[in-house]
Amino acid sequence: MATYRLTIEYEGTRYGGWQKQQNARTVAGEIERAASELAPIVDLGGAGRTDAGVHALAQSAHLRLRRSVDPEALRRDLNDRLPSDIHVLSVRAVEDAFHARHSAQARSYLYQISRRRTAFAKRHVWWVHKPLDLGRMDRAAALLPGRHDFASFCERPSEQASTLVHVDRVEIAEAGSLVLVRLVASHFLWKMVRRLVGALVRAGGGDLTNDDLVALLEGRVERVGAGRPAEWTAPASGLFLERVLYDGDPPLPPIAPAIPVAAEAEPAGEAPPRAPGRAPRPGAARSRRPRA
Amino acid sequence: MATYRLTIEYEGTRYGGWQKQQNARTVAGEIERAASELAPIVDLGGAGRTDAGVHALAQSAHLRLRRSVDPEALRRDLNDRLPSDIHVLSVRAVEDAFHARHSAQARSYLYQISRRRTAFAKRHVWWVHKPLDLGRMDRAAALLPGRHDFASFCERPSEQASTLVHVDRVEIAEAGSLVLVRLVASHFLWKMVRRLVGALVRAGGGDLTNDDLVALLEGRVERVGAGRPAEWTAPASGLFLERVLYDGDPPLPPIAPAIPVAAEAEPAGEAPPRAPGRAPRPGAARSRRPRA
Repeated sequence: MATYRLTIEYEGTRYGGWQKQQNARTVAGEIERAASELAPIVDLGGAGRTDAGVHALAQSAHLRLRRSVDPEALRRDLNDRLPSDIHVLSVRAVEDAFHARHSAQARSYLYQISRRRTAFAKRHVWWVHKPLDLGRMDRAAALLPGRHDFASFCERPSEQASTLVHVDRVEIAEAGSLVLVRLVASHFLWKMVRRLVGALVRAGGGDLTNDDLVALLEGRVERVGAGRPAEWTAPASGLFLERVLYDGDPPLPPIAPAIPVAAEAEPAGEAPPRAPGRAPRPGAARSRRPRA
Repeated sequence: MATYRLTIEYEGTRYGGWQKQQNARTVAGEIERAASELAPIVDLGGAGRTDAGVHALAQSAHLRLRRSVDPEALRRDLNDRLPSDIHVLSVRAVEDAFHARHSAQARSYLYQISRRRTAFAKRHVWWVHKPLDLGRMDRAAALLPGRHDFASFCERPSEQASTLVHVDRVEIAEAGSLVLVRLVASHFLWKMVRRLVGALVRAGGGDLTNDDLVALLEGRVERVGAGRPAEWTAPASGLFLERVLYDGDPPLPPIAPAIPVAAEAEPAGEAPPRAPGRAPRPGAARSRRPRA
């Protein structure tokens, strides 16, 4: 048997999520189909079970084959057999002990909120009409790191062994008309990222107080004046599994848009200057340093 | 009557081009439909007749209405009625003498070539497998500025009053795995941009000599050893009408990707660092270091 670590990007729009299903087209299903044309498969497992419509900039998976193959040839042969919205970025031979999910130390998710309508990015953002106060979002985000009971932010919490999660880091940044949210934790509960983003957006819109957010995070209540986190679930379109971190991996790069919104309109009504599209300008919103 | 200058971005993928047609959905057709719900239309005219599948970062159009309306309300009301892949960036009241096409001084087109397969950008790039020598592309691009007879690069040249065009500027730049080509001229002939890009790609691949390119540009020949420009037409997906320039407009910003490719794979096979996606430095065509 030979084991390979795959790093995969995909646009989740057309898929019923990562995990193989009987009656839906899924990313793992497509990769398994492609791989099975190349060699007999023992096992394919991803690090993050992204939901329907969620994207990945770098999903990580183990692929165990009955016989060993050249990693670069495997990468090329897989891509030749995959649809254009799934792309294997790299393939590396690893020890059989490698398990994409169990070996992972942490996951990083990136969420893209657009504060303007955009002709190009609908599939990759959540367009929020209501003005967002990024100071408020920052202050709400600062409450998230640490160990909390995220039962109120979890779909079907009763199916979880534990709803306690230690959130390592939450960053908020501006890049042109985008507001980016990055969340890093050892693991996330089902729909937890999208409900936290929903809560941050409610906080940014002035519709959720920090006291209410704290009450939710302490697991004291399931509902506050503003409602329940399940009602705030941010749409899948804005969510990217950004990176799966393993022991010895390089640190995360600075937060930056997955796919920046193209041009930015000038209020004057002139042809717009190009969005810088680069890692958010330092100080774009009072120099939002990452929190840890 | 009241005249408005509209700046519009659109993803051309689903449209039969800008110009209104009887039997195809077009961008102008959609805007005219949306505007007609707001006020009686006298005239709608665009500066660039983009082909089917071609995008625009900032198409310019005049919209003449029988009665005057608030420009900002017009923008909002149009966007409320337009599909998500057409977006009016700005609306400005202008003198009735303004004609989007006749008043324009120059057009700038941006072409995006991707040197890698990408899960996110297929609609916005031309994926070129063959390795490109950017030095060769630069040297070929340097032959284009000035006045030439572009008959060989034009679809149906006999329908043109003249096939002489003065090309102002050609820029080539790298941004991560993208190669960008920007062409600026007072006007372009039908399919000229895509055939010039096709020629530059052939030059970059070592399949077109500069002598043959000069012969084509001098209108001496319609075919060279490498073939005819019509055979090299670059796909519409990579092409963006970047800007329409009018008297008094600010100069073009530095060349930058319309929609950068998301992540970049590291050869090591590790999870990729984020593509910087930032505006390539002026003169990036020569100093090709990866941006960090």
